[in-house]
Amino acid sequence: MSNEEMAHVFAEWNTKGDILESFLIEITDKILRKKDDVASGGSASSDAYVVDKIKDKTGMKGTGRWTVQEAAEHSVAASIIATSLDARYLSARYEERQIAATVLQGPTGSSVPVVDKEQLLADLKAALYCAKVTSYAQGLQIIQAASLKNDWKIDLGLCARMWRGGCIIRASLLSKISLALEINPSLSNLLLDPTFAAEINDRQMAWRRVVTLGIASGISCPALSAALTYYDQYRRGRLPANLIQAQRDFFGGHTYERLDSEPGKSFHCLWDDAHKDIGDVAGRTAGEM
Amino acid sequence: MSNEEMAHVFAEWNTKGDILESFLIEITDKILRKKDDVASGGSASSDAYVVDKIKDKTGMKGTGRWTVQEAAEHSVAASIIATSLDARYLSARYEERQIAATVLQGPTGSSVPVVDKEQLLADLKAALYCAKVTSYAQGLQIIQAASLKNDWKIDLGLCARMWRGGCIIRASLLSKISLALEINPSLSNLLLDPTFAAEINDRQMAWRRVVTLGIASGISCPALSAALTYYDQYRRGRLPANLIQAQRDFFGGHTYERLDSEPGKSFHCLWDDAHKDIGDVAGRTAGEM
Repeated sequence: MSNEEMAHVFAEWNTKGDILESFLIEITDKILRKKDDVASGGSASSDAYVVDKIKDKTGMKGTGRWTVQEAAEHSVAASIIATSLDARYLSARYEERQIAATVLQGPTGSSVPVVDKEQLLADLKAALYCAKVTSYAQGLQIIQAASLKNDWKIDLGLCARMWRGGCIIRASLLSKISLALEINPSLSNLLLDPTFAAEINDRQMAWRRVVTLGIASGISCPALSAALTYYDQYRRGRLPANLIQAQRDFFGGHTYERLDSEPGKSFHCLWDDAHKDIGDVAGRTAGEM
Repeated sequence: MSNEEMAHVFAEWNTKGDILESFLIEITDKILRKKDDVASGGSASSDAYVVDKIKDKTGMKGTGRWTVQEAAEHSVAASIIATSLDARYLSARYEERQIAATVLQGPTGSSVPVVDKEQLLADLKAALYCAKVTSYAQGLQIIQAASLKNDWKIDLGLCARMWRGGCIIRASLLSKISLALEINPSLSNLLLDPTFAAEINDRQMAWRRVVTLGIASGISCPALSAALTYYDQYRRGRLPANLIQAQRDFFGGHTYERLDSEPGKSFHCLWDDAHKDIGDVAGRTAGEM
């Protein structure tokens, strides 16, 4: 697709009242259309676009870094913000990537699927929406965790309304978020709100199609992919974390809880002959976070 | 597959000298075989396995958290460690997940692909190897970055040899890693070592098959997926980070470099009529990290 065609898609996505309407979608439309005025000496008569002349090496001011560190402090998964930051770190290793590009291979053979353009654009819109909602869910959980820990009594719905006021993440989506938080101020995760859950259930197959297409094509979709990873973990009543707990108990005597026992009660297994009875397991979980 | 069948696969993967031979693979074999001795009152005569009785709620001691925070401090992408931690955070939200499981949907329709078991096991082995190498690449980059910043002069090859000595990540892979670092002590990324690059090039299609199968089946593969995301970004000479830089310049006048100008020279674009000439751009990158 040409820059103009891509800009057109972003302009459509930014339609008043549409699910993706937001400042970042709006400026992406404008950015993609902007002709280069450097090569032609100040006038915008060049046929090239500015964005295509910009070096793919991203800077940052540190707010993303602090957010990720704070999320870790509160044991909140902030994978979408983290992967976005990682994308910046990787972009900054510009010279290293030029070497990597000559050494490491992408998909081989005829494995890249043929796609229908209109279907793909509809899927992309749906996938982007799902990932955006999931990203807000993660971000709000960081604030909620910090608020609980520090007794700040932050009104998350008010946060969402404030962001509408005029920061770079302003988006029509924020109205729906503040509504969900007004209905249920103690909502532990945005994805559990019935309206958002229904919207994402409707779109999750499109989301899966986009990420698998990216992988099959060798095109990394860090945020869409990290968000889907999170979604598919979060919606599981049963995760394979029992194996992790077994491993931790095997190598470090870190103990585990049992499904058939009361919560909080610790068990230790004598996994093999090398494991001695460690006696009272009550003290083994000291230092757990 | 039954627990015994799965244990058998891990035992095979742990064959002396094989690419996956390691302590964690070895104990996973043992864990999967271990019969439950609680329900039957102390004797191991039960037909159930311990691992199936363990609650999927993971604890932690904090070393993963510190690693992720330190990686952010040094602008190193440590996505595989981060996503593993996120998996623990999510597992710990046990009650929330029970609700999410009733609200959020997985793949619908006949979209889950049919797979050949032997092929899938071979693919899984290849994918796990690729992700392990990538994880060591990320981990070593954190140590390298901290060593450079603090002038510690750490010998990364010696690190790898030390880990072989008797910690829980001991693995035959570490011999290859220390060899690669002896050949090139200033190797900026393990993936650029010719031996590892060739091994991963041979296996990257299997890696893609496993992760896409997981997505299509609604089974989250956080570490395999995060590693592949990283791989597909790192091997790109050109990333879409130019768009991010354009957005940052649009909303915050953060400036950008141009592909056709010398490195380090900053440019700013008058994206639309709302953008005034910000004059000398030299000071605009102050505070960049």
